[in-house]
Amino acid sequence: MRAARYHGPGDIRVDEIPKPEIESPDHAIVRVTHTAICGSDLWFYRGASDREAPSPVGHEPMGIVEEVGDDVVSVEPGDRVLAPFAVSCGECEFCRKGIHTSCVNGDGWGGDNGGGQGEYVRCTQADGTLVKVPDRHADDPETLRSLLPLTDVMCTGHHAAVSAGVDAGATCAVVGDGAVGLCGVLAARRLGAERIIAMGHHEDRLEIAEEFGATDLVSARGEEAVEAVHERTNGGVDHVLECVGAESSMETAVGVARPGGTVGYVGVPHGMDAGVDPFPFFGDNIALRGGVAPVREYIEDLMADVLQGTLDPAPVFTKTVDLDGVPEGYRAMDERDAVKVLVEL
Amino acid sequence: MRAARYHGPGDIRVDEIPKPEIESPDHAIVRVTHTAICGSDLWFYRGASDREAPSPVGHEPMGIVEEVGDDVVSVEPGDRVLAPFAVSCGECEFCRKGIHTSCVNGDGWGGDNGGGQGEYVRCTQADGTLVKVPDRHADDPETLRSLLPLTDVMCTGHHAAVSAGVDAGATCAVVGDGAVGLCGVLAARRLGAERIIAMGHHEDRLEIAEEFGATDLVSARGEEAVEAVHERTNGGVDHVLECVGAESSMETAVGVARPGGTVGYVGVPHGMDAGVDPFPFFGDNIALRGGVAPVREYIEDLMADVLQGTLDPAPVFTKTVDLDGVPEGYRAMDERDAVKVLVEL
Repeated sequence: MRAARYHGPGDIRVDEIPKPEIESPDHAIVRVTHTAICGSDLWFYRGASDREAPSPVGHEPMGIVEEVGDDVVSVEPGDRVLAPFAVSCGECEFCRKGIHTSCVNGDGWGGDNGGGQGEYVRCTQADGTLVKVPDRHADDPETLRSLLPLTDVMCTGHHAAVSAGVDAGATCAVVGDGAVGLCGVLAARRLGAERIIAMGHHEDRLEIAEEFGATDLVSARGEEAVEAVHERTNGGVDHVLECVGAESSMETAVGVARPGGTVGYVGVPHGMDAGVDPFPFFGDNIALRGGVAPVREYIEDLMADVLQGTLDPAPVFTKTVDLDGVPEGYRAMDERDAVKVLVEL
Repeated sequence: MRAARYHGPGDIRVDEIPKPEIESPDHAIVRVTHTAICGSDLWFYRGASDREAPSPVGHEPMGIVEEVGDDVVSVEPGDRVLAPFAVSCGECEFCRKGIHTSCVNGDGWGGDNGGGQGEYVRCTQADGTLVKVPDRHADDPETLRSLLPLTDVMCTGHHAAVSAGVDAGATCAVVGDGAVGLCGVLAARRLGAERIIAMGHHEDRLEIAEEFGATDLVSARGEEAVEAVHERTNGGVDHVLECVGAESSMETAVGVARPGGTVGYVGVPHGMDAGVDPFPFFGDNIALRGGVAPVREYIEDLMADVLQGTLDPAPVFTKTVDLDGVPEGYRAMDERDAVKVLVEL
């Protein structure tokens, strides 16, 4: 099969590699029809994190089930499915608690399973991981485009909002105008926030934030941005969605939090060799909640909203490529020519 | 008046200094009858934190109101009162929310107000800060000894338990066997925890922990301690009370937390130049909650339990001195000859 692989920083190629096969009765093979490139893919692309080379890339697959192992009961060949970036069993203590990312039988994409940015993937925990799209919605291109972000960024933004404790009537701030931050705005609106302050540095992305429900836009940086939020809220907000994962964004997040408030964080920490400075959290009893998003926990609920037409994260896809266009997709995201790239195979 | 003052690392002296006076109608002067030496006092004593020299020390005063300003309504001369380490107005947004430590009109002890380890203190927010002991309990020496820890360590341990989400039936771990950790054990038991794992390195202190309700004692260090807790709990606990504030204790705390659990932390961070490593929190969605304890919020509730005889933190006082004995009290705590020192004036 053909699949995008990482060969080194800045070097993504579409290669011929072996198609994954069923090796256990709980496996399924999915023919990928749609996938995406993630902001987190840029770390290895930029050489900021280590990755084996060559190795298949991508972790946001949607497609058609081609084959299932004998024990699989929740999906069958021909079903349209999507899958989160983490593979989970659905049956252990942590899956039952909704922390599928801590699944004791957890697995992922890549390696022999194939990466999400390739023609086929093997899901090693099909029943616990794959989510079926109802048949009558399974072939509408617009619907699929709106569902695809549920594989990662939409559910991750939602996790930030949930972790920050956003609820009806809340005033919140969203730090970061990448795809996760934009989805965080959508999620906060969905949870009933009345005031959503979107913080970022890109005019075009903040426009999407506004379209998604942000009531205030703050494009300043650092201390100036913090002051702007304090001014607009008389001292900060109770709920902050930290959607970047950098040292500076964490500083901004705790800086705009009101005493006793909560920072919900979902960006994989990077560039935090110095760790998180505990003092601003400690001094004002600001909680730090969140972590790697248990996307699987949220997909069904959010899918219902997408299918009902009340939630549409599709605008985060500002560029579409085919499989051969994946290297160009990485370039576009790296150079911020695209918020998020949709790959249609 | 006579008061203990800091003159430099390792150098505490009892000096003659001016007695504080009422300077505003919301002030009160308290004649200190009981106070304590705090683990946090050891940082400047050891030269690990900066402090003006000379400066009056102590922040856990209990005593008799001597004089009040014209606007003070909640206490009057002759009342037995105690006060938390933070002075707060009781009326601002944050006091109303129970985060008195973020009071917008906040003040503290020391300087012209006098330190808690002296004959008199001035409380600049008497109505919001001082808590009256009911008259019929106001003179019993044993009762006062049991109430004094409410000025700091008992309420701080309670804040750790509350922040960690301890509730009826919970299994929790308490990192640290200092006075705050021991009070954390008491607090967890009071909140209904069924299993309380006390972690520390001092046999005599762990004995107090057991007396306070700890069901398991772990005296190992580092990775070995973490493994011991994992073994006893099949993978960690949902509620961790971090009662030290050091880098290693925070590592232990997150290490013994179960995925999806919460670390409640109350020890002022020190020796954390490297910050808090976010990865173990992030990867397993472990929340970090707490901060400087809003002691004032908890005093009334815990006082009721002490007066009813269901709560008694007095055993944390393993040594008693008079005002002249304060320098010796610091030495004893510094050399771990005492868990916590009671000062009777």
